[in-house]
Amino acid sequence: MRLRPTVQGQTLGPVQRDRLLRICVVGCGAVGSLFAANLAQLEDVEVWAYDLDRAHVGAINRDGLHVSGAGDVLARVHATDEAGDVPPCDFGIVATKAMHTDAAVAATARAFADGAVASVQNGLGNEDAIARHVQRVIRGTTFPAGRLVAPGRVQWDVKGDTTLGPFEPQPASLDEVERLADACTRAGMPTAAVDDARGPQWRKVIFNAATNPLGALTGLTHGRVCERTDLRALVSMLVVEGKAVASAQAIELDADPEELIDHAARKDVAYDHKASMLQDVEARRATEIDFLNGGIVRAGRDHDVSTPLNEAVWALVKGLEASWTS
Amino acid sequence: MRLRPTVQGQTLGPVQRDRLLRICVVGCGAVGSLFAANLAQLEDVEVWAYDLDRAHVGAINRDGLHVSGAGDVLARVHATDEAGDVPPCDFGIVATKAMHTDAAVAATARAFADGAVASVQNGLGNEDAIARHVQRVIRGTTFPAGRLVAPGRVQWDVKGDTTLGPFEPQPASLDEVERLADACTRAGMPTAAVDDARGPQWRKVIFNAATNPLGALTGLTHGRVCERTDLRALVSMLVVEGKAVASAQAIELDADPEELIDHAARKDVAYDHKASMLQDVEARRATEIDFLNGGIVRAGRDHDVSTPLNEAVWALVKGLEASWTS
Repeated sequence: MRLRPTVQGQTLGPVQRDRLLRICVVGCGAVGSLFAANLAQLEDVEVWAYDLDRAHVGAINRDGLHVSGAGDVLARVHATDEAGDVPPCDFGIVATKAMHTDAAVAATARAFADGAVASVQNGLGNEDAIARHVQRVIRGTTFPAGRLVAPGRVQWDVKGDTTLGPFEPQPASLDEVERLADACTRAGMPTAAVDDARGPQWRKVIFNAATNPLGALTGLTHGRVCERTDLRALVSMLVVEGKAVASAQAIELDADPEELIDHAARKDVAYDHKASMLQDVEARRATEIDFLNGGIVRAGRDHDVSTPLNEAVWALVKGLEASWTS
Repeated sequence: MRLRPTVQGQTLGPVQRDRLLRICVVGCGAVGSLFAANLAQLEDVEVWAYDLDRAHVGAINRDGLHVSGAGDVLARVHATDEAGDVPPCDFGIVATKAMHTDAAVAATARAFADGAVASVQNGLGNEDAIARHVQRVIRGTTFPAGRLVAPGRVQWDVKGDTTLGPFEPQPASLDEVERLADACTRAGMPTAAVDDARGPQWRKVIFNAATNPLGALTGLTHGRVCERTDLRALVSMLVVEGKAVASAQAIELDADPEELIDHAARKDVAYDHKASMLQDVEARRATEIDFLNGGIVRAGRDHDVSTPLNEAVWALVKGLEASWTS
């Protein structure tokens, strides 16, 4: 564990690409913190974090950002809950929950006037939301997972790969995608730059949409969902619908989501993992269901693919959310 | 409200059909209590109740069975948790939860050696379970609803009709069906005796299977399930599957379950009603899902009708039940 010498208090001039890459993580929850803390280990990267959780921001600025578990890092990060404080950046990495993308990127867009912004979020439609405020956008998918255990402290549960590629309608240059991927990889977050990042993205969306709502509706961990024959069959039926929608868009999955599901169900991997959606339900927070199963259903409608089971679990989770308000 | 003179303590001889009809309600929860209390108002009917809830049995024997709400009745009923105490009866009315039918009828069967036994339960398969222990069986469906609010006290939420008919493989005589229906009707529980009681039964099963699990999984009342466009659409898709399975068995529904669903959703009917399955989930009790959606799925398999959505909600509710044990 090493602490990079602080740059806090320094006067920060305009971006000078040959000496310093300035990256702002937008939404510094569990996944955002993994990127922020690891990237801050690099001598040539300066990391900012924009987040609305004041206690978390305060703790990061006071004591550093602590990550422990699958990897241990203590990082100096410039955290703020004031979008106006974020200086011009080369890159943004958006890691908010999907329903907060629009507001968070609208607030910080000015900092990315000359930069490119990547999504590493769950679900479908995040890049579209980013592209409403920012010129050059990077489509991304990331598999590492963790959770915020206290202000400034993140538990790193699972390591994993990240894939970045240009967002087709409003792309960052391949050079930009490669520079960001290179920084992440050097920081210990293995990241591939690819031409078409839709395959990994849809693999993860299908994985999440087929498993997270079942955990959220039943209260079962990923492993327990998968060891019940009846629920595992439902998972597969949701996967089949998701694959059909991907296929109708000529998206080639980089691997079968079923493999990922079975792998994660292993006792030594994520058997005991409560899906983030279940964590949301237990905390009575809005879930990302609109961007997971909702995203699959909408894409299905656009391409004449029927998705009744994704529609069913979407409706059930929305109903569950509605029950918290009378 | 009137209290029928007690016959408790009397020596009860063999059934004399011209003077007294002896009926035992097997499972004296909410619905069982509505039958027991109302039938006990008739001068020519003697009512017994078999139930394993000792506090409830004790309160009934001590203070009578109190029903209030849609109707107010105070009834003298012979309650017992000892099956051996039940004397020979003309009729049994089984009103346990579906998963307890077999055990409850096995225990009391001796009392019905010369009698006929009706189910007024939810779900599919109850008559088959009764027929394993009793010679002459009546298929029944009832719509009144209520809840046990304290030992000996039942809240009557909704009035409704009952339909009785011979159970095809092991039927009671039509005369028996008519005698029981007549007693119920005279007691204030309007009951029709019909040749084929499968239509009303399937209408209610489809109603329950299409709505109860959605309440149980989301926590919403019947009215709130129905006013959400997405959940109401799921209800209809479940109804469509149920109708297809009924139709494959040449069962003619006596009315469209959709009408019943919309009627019940009215603010002046059952908008605020929590489905019994939701009550079970809140109390972490096993639900009747195996006999509702499970029954539809099994019947569908027997008749080559695919029922993916009933299968999905069946799996989800079973998963939810499993989450209560770690």
